[in-house]
Amino acid sequence: MLRYSLYNEDQIREPDLPESYGSENSSAADNQQERLIKIGWITGYVDGEGCFSINLVRQPHRYNRRGYKTGFQVAHEFAVTQGASSLESLHLLVKFFDVGNVYINKRYDNHKEHLHRYCVRTREELVKTIIPFFEQYPLRTSKQGNFLKFAECMDLMGTGAHLTSSGLIKIVEIAATMNHKKPRTEIIRILRDYTPDTDPHR
Amino acid sequence: MLRYSLYNEDQIREPDLPESYGSENSSAADNQQERLIKIGWITGYVDGEGCFSINLVRQPHRYNRRGYKTGFQVAHEFAVTQGASSLESLHLLVKFFDVGNVYINKRYDNHKEHLHRYCVRTREELVKTIIPFFEQYPLRTSKQGNFLKFAECMDLMGTGAHLTSSGLIKIVEIAATMNHKKPRTEIIRILRDYTPDTDPHR
Repeated sequence: MLRYSLYNEDQIREPDLPESYGSENSSAADNQQERLIKIGWITGYVDGEGCFSINLVRQPHRYNRRGYKTGFQVAHEFAVTQGASSLESLHLLVKFFDVGNVYINKRYDNHKEHLHRYCVRTREELVKTIIPFFEQYPLRTSKQGNFLKFAECMDLMGTGAHLTSSGLIKIVEIAATMNHKKPRTEIIRILRDYTPDTDPHR
Repeated sequence: MLRYSLYNEDQIREPDLPESYGSENSSAADNQQERLIKIGWITGYVDGEGCFSINLVRQPHRYNRRGYKTGFQVAHEFAVTQGASSLESLHLLVKFFDVGNVYINKRYDNHKEHLHRYCVRTREELVKTIIPFFEQYPLRTSKQGNFLKFAECMDLMGTGAHLTSSGLIKIVEIAATMNHKKPRTEIIRILRDYTPDTDPHR
């Protein structure tokens, strides 16, 4: 699996962080230490609060879009969720990865604070930035298994698997084993029964 | 606040980790990188899953123990909780800090897995190992505020504050602002009303 990596050895050693972290002397060596600690912090934080997910969204009326030929869109997302009081930590992720955004998920029940989510959703940002980072710096909890499945689904999409029913079934079967999900027998049944000649745009 | 720190500069630079992490070449520089990434991972993981807590436990019949003169024991704990599937990540913490243990918290309702908790509870281990680590490598979420309050309570205990009602009230008032706790007006009222002459052991 050959991917472009944002974080090769030279870049790690480069003192490119403006912030000072735990030290008043911001020499190059300190900055390198700081960068490695921050890289580690991201892996630990994602082990705690992160989620890699693959979902299928029905798009029955948009067969003319290349990606939705099967009647389904594959929605891929990397997200980290946190309460409003720790919003700043999500902006650290935006700043570090330089992709993705923070969205608010307002809660009006008796929860104490709104939720915020750092999300990366575009395939390009996931494949070029997020996946190479976690390939280089693996997670240390069972989320690593989800990450590997997520990366496998993105690889399959890179070969166009999601454009055919059989390929999409493969993706759905992998996704069904992620994040304690329920089996998606209904979607797989629909995809198995799919007859392309009902699609006027093919 | 002067404390013994396990992790001075020399120790960080020392290649003392047996495991290889993301590299087959385990040179000293690699080991140093690995150690910094692991330090960062711990701060991120604790930002996600960790908890510093101070609780008061009634000990009405143990006035003869030096620490329980007020009728209360201060229970101090650093804990990281995780599902059984990520148990290994908690053992990483035991190995790294060389203090604390992992306990099981069995769940028999409809949850998918038992919970496990990495806990450090003794004052010595908290003061000599856990607190100096997080002073040197700060958390990046709102848990940092809880940590600082926790360390302040432990400092107060270091001066014997918990042995008097007025000192214990100070600790309880700080603890009441940690971890979204409810105000502990009841305990504070009991402590304010406390009359030492009801205690036969004083």
